[in-house]
Amino acid sequence: MKFGDLVRSEGDKAKNHKPIIDCPDSVKAGEEFEVRVYVEGHPSRVEHSIRFIEIYFYEEGKEFNPIKLAKAVFTPGYVAPDVRLRLKIEKSGVVFALAYCNEHGLWESSKRIAVS
Amino acid sequence: MKFGDLVRSEGDKAKNHKPIIDCPDSVKAGEEFEVRVYVEGHPSRVEHSIRFIEIYFYEEGKEFNPIKLAKAVFTPGYVAPDVRLRLKIEKSGVVFALAYCNEHGLWESSKRIAVS
Amino acid sequence: MKFGDLVRSEGDKAKNHKPIIDCPDSVKAGEEFEVRVYVEGHPSRVEHSIRFIEIYFYEEGKEFNPIKLAKAVFTPGYVAPDVRLRLKIEKSGVVFALAYCNEHGLWESSKRIAVS
Amino acid sequence: MKFGDLVRSEGDKAKNHKPIIDCPDSVKAGEEFEVRVYVEGHPSRVEHSIRFIEIYFYEEGKEFNPIKLAKAVFTPGYVAPDVRLRLKIEKSGVVFALAYCNEHGLWESSKRIAVS
Repeated sequence: MKFGDLVRSEGDKAKNHKPIIDCPDSVKAGEEFEVRVYVEGHPSRVEHSIRFIEIYFYEEGKEFNPIKLAKAVFTPGYVAPDVRLRLKIEKSGVVFALAYCNEHGLWESSKRIAVS
Repeated sequence: MKFGDLVRSEGDKAKNHKPIIDCPDSVKAGEEFEVRVYVEGHPSRVEHSIRFIEIYFYEEGKEFNPIKLAKAVFTPGYVAPDVRLRLKIEKSGVVFALAYCNEHGLWESSKRIAVS
Repeated sequence: MKFGDLVRSEGDKAKNHKPIIDCPDSVKAGEEFEVRVYVEGHPSRVEHSIRFIEIYFYEEGKEFNPIKLAKAVFTPGYVAPDVRLRLKIEKSGVVFALAYCNEHGLWESSKRIAVS
Repeated sequence: MKFGDLVRSEGDKAKNHKPIIDCPDSVKAGEEFEVRVYVEGHPSRVEHSIRFIEIYFYEEGKEFNPIKLAKAVFTPGYVAPDVRLRLKIEKSGVVFALAYCNEHGLWESSKRIAVS
């Protein structure tokens, strides 16, 4: 069994566990842009919540990936699993978002961003 | 020496180390609102950056505080120390933000939010 | 591309990036045991270090996995990527360790633990 | 109100909330030593547990402190609030440990280590 096999992107629970990545499809090298990553329609209780979202980046042309970009941790009841950050990248690549639910494990989404 | 004595809010370095808290002064109980916490004008290099921002809450009337609300971790060079989250609270209290610089330690800001 | 494809366990860099999991092969249900997870022979400089180790658990019989058990974050120059914790589990399963190097990405190891 | 005022070290709840720091009183410059930080006798349930332990360092002679050394995050029910790490320091200073309980807030301990 490999760890990667445990990270899901499909299935009945995908609709309220998969993180949604909201950012431009293309950006200029080194210019800041906003990325929002969020999970919709999920409970936020101490027994069951999206505990954190992690953002990784696969930088095209880099021999070893991924690069961990950011992590946001949410306290259930007080904080929604919804984070907006300001990124800048120099090379095209793929943003990966991971959302962790304490009951239903790890869920992934990804989006390619082209650098012009 | 107490740990709390090490958390600064004033001094020459305050202008680009103190986190800025941007959120309403008053909110309705249990209704989501946005909070933005950021540090302006600080370098973002692997040798020197704002590594993370933490958000704590002092809930008025609660015997033991604070409540840790959220944490955001930033990779230098890629991610600015600037996070926006969606909170909800049931009681008035004080939001505390901590920004950590790997060279210049911990910096704090706070803002009271009244619940109507 | 899937996120899981980016987590490596083999290759030239495996020898000083793969986490080593040191714990019993079998334990009693609900009794504490020690687990040590570490990376050997890796630099510990601000430009290049093992930034963190994460421990996940695949619990056999649970419909959704993994469970995030613990995370340890290490400041380069001061803290070796070597953590010992006390765990207890009720059911057999597989411990996964992830080690993250800021230059060379994510590396995984796993070990099954039988509960008697 | 200052954030530091919220970090406790005394009171009725101190006996099972204050972190205990177990490490040598004196070490050699740059030589690794073990530090154990733990909380004893505290529940470990999802509704009430020690969520994390943070280790900071006040380095004597450094103009800005503290340095964040490490953080360990514990999942209730599976992981005790008890972490052992390997540190090295070049200068004398004070290790601070913070333990966070989701019900009873932040608790601190400290211990000076002399470097010979």
